[in-house]
Amino acid sequence: MSDAESTPVTTPNPAFDDPEYRTGVVELLGLLSYGEMSACERLAEDAAMAPDLPAKAEIMAMAASEFAHFRLLRDHLVALGEDPYARMEPFAETFEAFHRKTAPADWLEGLVKAFVFDGLAADFYREIAAFLDAGTRQLVLDAMSGTGSSEFVVDAVRGAIVIDPTVGGRLALWGRRLMGEALSQAQMVVAERDELSALLVGGVDSPGMDLAAIGRMFTRLTEAHAARMDRLGLAS
Amino acid sequence: MSDAESTPVTTPNPAFDDPEYRTGVVELLGLLSYGEMSACERLAEDAAMAPDLPAKAEIMAMAASEFAHFRLLRDHLVALGEDPYARMEPFAETFEAFHRKTAPADWLEGLVKAFVFDGLAADFYREIAAFLDAGTRQLVLDAMSGTGSSEFVVDAVRGAIVIDPTVGGRLALWGRRLMGEALSQAQMVVAERDELSALLVGGVDSPGMDLAAIGRMFTRLTEAHAARMDRLGLAS
Repeated sequence: MSDAESTPVTTPNPAFDDPEYRTGVVELLGLLSYGEMSACERLAEDAAMAPDLPAKAEIMAMAASEFAHFRLLRDHLVALGEDPYARMEPFAETFEAFHRKTAPADWLEGLVKAFVFDGLAADFYREIAAFLDAGTRQLVLDAMSGTGSSEFVVDAVRGAIVIDPTVGGRLALWGRRLMGEALSQAQMVVAERDELSALLVGGVDSPGMDLAAIGRMFTRLTEAHAARMDRLGLAS
Repeated sequence: MSDAESTPVTTPNPAFDDPEYRTGVVELLGLLSYGEMSACERLAEDAAMAPDLPAKAEIMAMAASEFAHFRLLRDHLVALGEDPYARMEPFAETFEAFHRKTAPADWLEGLVKAFVFDGLAADFYREIAAFLDAGTRQLVLDAMSGTGSSEFVVDAVRGAIVIDPTVGGRLALWGRRLMGEALSQAQMVVAERDELSALLVGGVDSPGMDLAAIGRMFTRLTEAHAARMDRLGLAS
């Protein structure tokens, strides 16, 4: 089956009667689609640094899982009558800048990056799902399902620290840098896009979050990040 | 679901009462597994050269499809009680040498390589399936199912030749070089592995091919290659 041949399914969605909400959702799906595609691409690149074939298969399985998520989101955009690639394009610069600034220097940095962003993305998907209509929410939750990389990464990172404890300090710094870059890029994306940020903050009538609630969301994301670093045996 | 958690299913296979046949099949599955994994890796690398997002999604879909084939073959080796990565390792040098010698210089060379080997691999899977027991044959045929890249590659290559006809000459030479390298590596693999080549040539009792039949198989593979080059608008 050719990848271009996905059949669009049109689902009427009363929530889309609000054009600003619809625009926000389409922007969100473009953002997530680009994120999944570029995550897939980076993971596949990391495969070249794998120390052995089982490790290579693990990282490639993660890449394949991100691609499946991308396909789900893209096909939904098609079903909405949107050109998915045109909706993804506005986020290219954000993600490319992010990946340029967080290019892993070695296999372990790649694993920590994959683990940190897999978790952060899942948390973000779960947070934003609460503000979406039922159909879009289900899509986002389906696309969120974990890549299953957790145990593999935890074992690899903890094992490397046992062999050389100085690795722990270096990777802890790396984890902080990753989170800092992610938050700074996320802030820019939201600041530039009114309808997308309205999904979170809420317009006059919509049940979005107020600024205090956004603050609490960032606290939750940061705490979950700290818990993940802890699982890896790294200070956050 | 973690990639490491595939549950082995043990299927008793009377054909495996012949230990040489079993060894040949296990070698074949190791060979195909390595081939699918390395095809996936190269296609994912090619994604970096994609001219736009739709093209990138097409090549990544091909990579994901190769990974699905790899997973199928690997899980079958696990089900046979074999360590799949240990069975793949002997073919690492062959495939790495092949890919080093056929690293595409640009996007179009990558597309032609993907198209040529996708087709060649499918032809080879179909040829060898005829000499396998029913269970192994079905596995090989399942893993063979096309990546669906054909129309996309044909359009891209033909389109590029319309814009610049000199591209056609360069890519035709490239296609010949690809086929030459593939045949030379294939010959080395078969020459080094008795049980694997016995699958094709046949031992005293097994219904493999004689050398004349192998010659005819190579003729068929070469003719199918020429037909594929023709579809791309390239002389073979």
